[in-house]
Amino acid sequence: MTDVLDDRQTWRDLAQQFRVDSIRVSSHAGSGHPTSSLSAAELMSVLVAKYFHYRVDEPHDPNNDHLIFSKGHASPLFYAILRAIGAVDEQEFMTYRTLGSRLEGHPTPVLPWVDVATGSLGQGLPIGVGVALAAKRLDRLPYRTWVLCGDSEMAEGSMWEAFAQAAYDNLDNLTAIIDVNRLGQTGETRYEWDLDVYANRLRAFGWHAIEIDGHDVDAVDRAYGEALATTSKPTVIVARTVKGKGVPWEENRNGFHGKPVEDPEDAIRELGGLSNLIVRPQPPESRGEPHHFTAGKLDLPRYELGQKVATRKAYGEALAAVGTARPEVVALDGEVGNSTYTEIFAKAHPERFFQMYIAEQQMIGAAVGLQVRGWRPFAATFSAFLSRAYDFVRMAAVSRADLCLCGSHAGVSIGEDGPSQMGLEDIAAMRAVHGSTVLYPCDANQTAHLVELMASQPGISYMRTTRQAMPVIYGPDETFAIGGSRVLRESADDALTIVAAGISVGEALAAADLLAQEGTAARVIDLYSVKPLDSDTLVAAARATGRVLTVEDHWPEGGLGEAVFAALAEAGVAVAGRQLAVSRMAGSATPEQQLAEQGLDADGIAGAARQLAQRPALKPPAVAVTGGVG
Amino acid sequence: MTDVLDDRQTWRDLAQQFRVDSIRVSSHAGSGHPTSSLSAAELMSVLVAKYFHYRVDEPHDPNNDHLIFSKGHASPLFYAILRAIGAVDEQEFMTYRTLGSRLEGHPTPVLPWVDVATGSLGQGLPIGVGVALAAKRLDRLPYRTWVLCGDSEMAEGSMWEAFAQAAYDNLDNLTAIIDVNRLGQTGETRYEWDLDVYANRLRAFGWHAIEIDGHDVDAVDRAYGEALATTSKPTVIVARTVKGKGVPWEENRNGFHGKPVEDPEDAIRELGGLSNLIVRPQPPESRGEPHHFTAGKLDLPRYELGQKVATRKAYGEALAAVGTARPEVVALDGEVGNSTYTEIFAKAHPERFFQMYIAEQQMIGAAVGLQVRGWRPFAATFSAFLSRAYDFVRMAAVSRADLCLCGSHAGVSIGEDGPSQMGLEDIAAMRAVHGSTVLYPCDANQTAHLVELMASQPGISYMRTTRQAMPVIYGPDETFAIGGSRVLRESADDALTIVAAGISVGEALAAADLLAQEGTAARVIDLYSVKPLDSDTLVAAARATGRVLTVEDHWPEGGLGEAVFAALAEAGVAVAGRQLAVSRMAGSATPEQQLAEQGLDADGIAGAARQLAQRPALKPPAVAVTGGVG
Repeated sequence: MTDVLDDRQTWRDLAQQFRVDSIRVSSHAGSGHPTSSLSAAELMSVLVAKYFHYRVDEPHDPNNDHLIFSKGHASPLFYAILRAIGAVDEQEFMTYRTLGSRLEGHPTPVLPWVDVATGSLGQGLPIGVGVALAAKRLDRLPYRTWVLCGDSEMAEGSMWEAFAQAAYDNLDNLTAIIDVNRLGQTGETRYEWDLDVYANRLRAFGWHAIEIDGHDVDAVDRAYGEALATTSKPTVIVARTVKGKGVPWEENRNGFHGKPVEDPEDAIRELGGLSNLIVRPQPPESRGEPHHFTAGKLDLPRYELGQKVATRKAYGEALAAVGTARPEVVALDGEVGNSTYTEIFAKAHPERFFQMYIAEQQMIGAAVGLQVRGWRPFAATFSAFLSRAYDFVRMAAVSRADLCLCGSHAGVSIGEDGPSQMGLEDIAAMRAVHGSTVLYPCDANQTAHLVELMASQPGISYMRTTRQAMPVIYGPDETFAIGGSRVLRESADDALTIVAAGISVGEALAAADLLAQEGTAARVIDLYSVKPLDSDTLVAAARATGRVLTVEDHWPEGGLGEAVFAALAEAGVAVAGRQLAVSRMAGSATPEQQLAEQGLDADGIAGAARQLAQRPALKPPAVAVTGGVG
Repeated sequence: MTDVLDDRQTWRDLAQQFRVDSIRVSSHAGSGHPTSSLSAAELMSVLVAKYFHYRVDEPHDPNNDHLIFSKGHASPLFYAILRAIGAVDEQEFMTYRTLGSRLEGHPTPVLPWVDVATGSLGQGLPIGVGVALAAKRLDRLPYRTWVLCGDSEMAEGSMWEAFAQAAYDNLDNLTAIIDVNRLGQTGETRYEWDLDVYANRLRAFGWHAIEIDGHDVDAVDRAYGEALATTSKPTVIVARTVKGKGVPWEENRNGFHGKPVEDPEDAIRELGGLSNLIVRPQPPESRGEPHHFTAGKLDLPRYELGQKVATRKAYGEALAAVGTARPEVVALDGEVGNSTYTEIFAKAHPERFFQMYIAEQQMIGAAVGLQVRGWRPFAATFSAFLSRAYDFVRMAAVSRADLCLCGSHAGVSIGEDGPSQMGLEDIAAMRAVHGSTVLYPCDANQTAHLVELMASQPGISYMRTTRQAMPVIYGPDETFAIGGSRVLRESADDALTIVAAGISVGEALAAADLLAQEGTAARVIDLYSVKPLDSDTLVAAARATGRVLTVEDHWPEGGLGEAVFAALAEAGVAVAGRQLAVSRMAGSATPEQQLAEQGLDADGIAGAARQLAQRPALKPPAVAVTGGVG
């Protein structure tokens, strides 16, 4: 362990060690991105030695600085840092990219020193904005967030969402470091080494921009010092670097991206050979406690039976109530808070509301960043527009993030606005996120209870809400469970089961009324928890009725219907099935007309049920008697 | 019809007519965005009267200018233009937002004068970049593209992807018009009327920026003139406007977004009342023919049986061959062409290749723009990163776009790079796109034939390719069909059916070999067309075997397994089912280890098959004999 605060030679030696280690691990693994690591070695050595305040043994110390590798493919460099600060030992270091190792190809929070997964470019900076927002507005602590970015990822729009948001919020606790090594995966970047292009754009975006030679440790030192001294705006260091720096036969040449270096032993020799510098970062200067907001009593909204309330409204009211009871709950919105009703939370808890404007990727990135510091974000926009941030949601699952999403205006039932505003893919997309929870309430009281449950749910949870007011069918004291369902109609002679959720529940009940008038009994299940699925209830209903009709205001693929039929097949239950879903591209029409056009209103459901009831029920006794369908 | 080329009063009168009409239709419909239309009335009246070259009767004339409303919610203004240029009559005009009307809440190409659907903000400009690229590099015609943008959507990263791309490509045939009306949906935009913020950023991005008062027709006129005169860079007109302009009680006030104006009759009176100006745009000056590239013979690549080839490689080679035969085929890539193998096309057809750098939203936006002009784009990146552009793909379906997508590096089988690089949600996401086709080939010859078929497929077609080399199992002369499948193993005493696609086909065949050694016969189906699905073949196999095991290198939700079981339920076929899929978050490991860890290698499949074979087969005769499962 060395005192390296101002020891230029140690900075240089440490950079060389990072290079040697980056080459060693990637060559040992047979894959990885050493050349992208080599370019940023001095940028990281000076940072770690002098500016990064961090307790290695307490990675979750609230006063720690944060270091995010937005260019996650430079993981060899990141792990070389972990080795140099004593976080991982030589033995673990060399497990890079092997089965069971915590040192994955791109960093993930399987390692306690990693805040979030990166590797999909353009995400680290938006997430860093979230961490910096947590510092300023929630924790109210002076820790800093440092984000190492690549030059290739500057093409990603999400970077510019982050640049705009950070400047607007005066995040002087955030420093972005752009490693301008001129070469992307396949060739030259757009602007190569024209640092002015980057710096001028960033200045126009409100950042303090510093252009340097990223291999000159003095210049790097001065730049970080300037970043610390800059108040009221974030700082970006635009650093000219050489890809493959230190390995002469690969320096600044195409064709070496994402490959172990050629002749690694020669390269290591060239760089001065293996070294074992250990550099402990300075501890945080502050020992402050993160700010806590005051907790109040949980007073969920209560709705009267029969009252007509949109679930999106209930979401907003419930979120405000949950926010009172749980001071760690915060809310974000994509400038549609009067549609999603996040505005109710914003009014009740203005200190915990984040206006993200129409930048859905930054909204989810910020949410991921906020939960890094233990806050519980609820982020909302139209369900259709959450698709804008799908890669961020996917990566949030890799980050093992706990966060809550709400997508309003689901389905054709939004009415006149037309298909651009209709969330019709959201159940499929959100179900396919690993470890996710997907909830689709049909009334206001159910919504309120589920919002409360979401606030404790691990992983990504998603609630789908409806634009139209719908009658309250559950009393305010009824309870619901993630993974649950409700059998709303049931009798011994049910000819079929109708499984619905959200706006389709009311239509299904009305269809059951129509069928009952004709003497056909239909079981009706409210499948408000689309994932996880209440398989037991579905199996029992399928066995009892032998026919299952699913109804959803969503495209047929990946939605509630497929989830139900796959679960039944897995359980080995035979059913005659029918999937009702949105089947044609909608135009404009009233909500009622939209549902009717798609056959998703009570008449359409009843019609489909009549047809299904004509088909042989595949329940065991019936099959045994009839010999089944042929 | 008026000669309005330089008649300031007519420009003003036309703007007032646009305002009156915007109010009339939205009030009649009871919904819509009149105040967002009112702000841009002069910007559009001067454009249409003097600068927009267009044959209304021949909306697909290749020499026509293009006008895209990136702020699609200003549809009342757009339709007011269509009325003024004689495209729609008064009667149709007043059908706005009603069932069956072509005048939807947000514009879609149901109207022949609309190129693409808008309404998800931040998409019109990236698409406009595509149209402008088509003009410059493919059609080689002097038509111009004009895009009306809102100030709120300037927060979307996709706008900045477009600004960067357009400047880099010197698109002086593209003009963006920013309607800075200061107010978003819920309140003030970030920069309100600070035009300099926008203009400075855009200048830094390489645009010629002009700041004007958007209600001063002379200023608007001069700005358009300056745009025409500007060469080698695109022009942006940053126009200060007033939301609700012309309706004094709503001008520049919050709370009126997305609502019909209050007191519409008073408002119309205030604006001078109903008028019926008809303004024919000038015809295009050019009568040129769009450039055509030379067609050659189709010479698809041919692979030897047993040869090991990655399907991503076959994609690149086939695409180059299809490009030779079909001169309308063009390719785009997100700076990973040496991974997706788009580089093979780029080398063969450099004039028809578009490097989009790491900006997936702009890549899909450009693809949509290119197909507006009849080109057939193939856009590729890692399947994981196509999720970045999911909203663009969703909207492309609303645009009725014909385009081909390829996502490489699907599944855990990519190996060491880890979960950030694994496409594991792509089948779910792409299946849920309306009218889409989803193909997942297992060998190189199959890939080649499917690439050829994709080039003629209407709608959005998606091919999922694999990183690893896989053995060629089909001869080069075998044929395949969209909606088809292949039964690879079949016997009269098959105990179960294994349905697989892509990399799982080889593993399924190896599993069938293992099972055969134990005396268990397994039918194996290659379901290379995941959507549309070959229901007949699946139903026949399910009936014959009574047990179905699906295998996929994808999360369980929304993938091949759910598609299969939903189709079987719909057909009323009883099966004992089992879905093998990726079930745990992967780390790093070799491809073989990754598949083994998830139970998706031959051993894992054979193990699941053995368990399934223990369960009662739900085929009709067996059920009749045993009394079914209890």
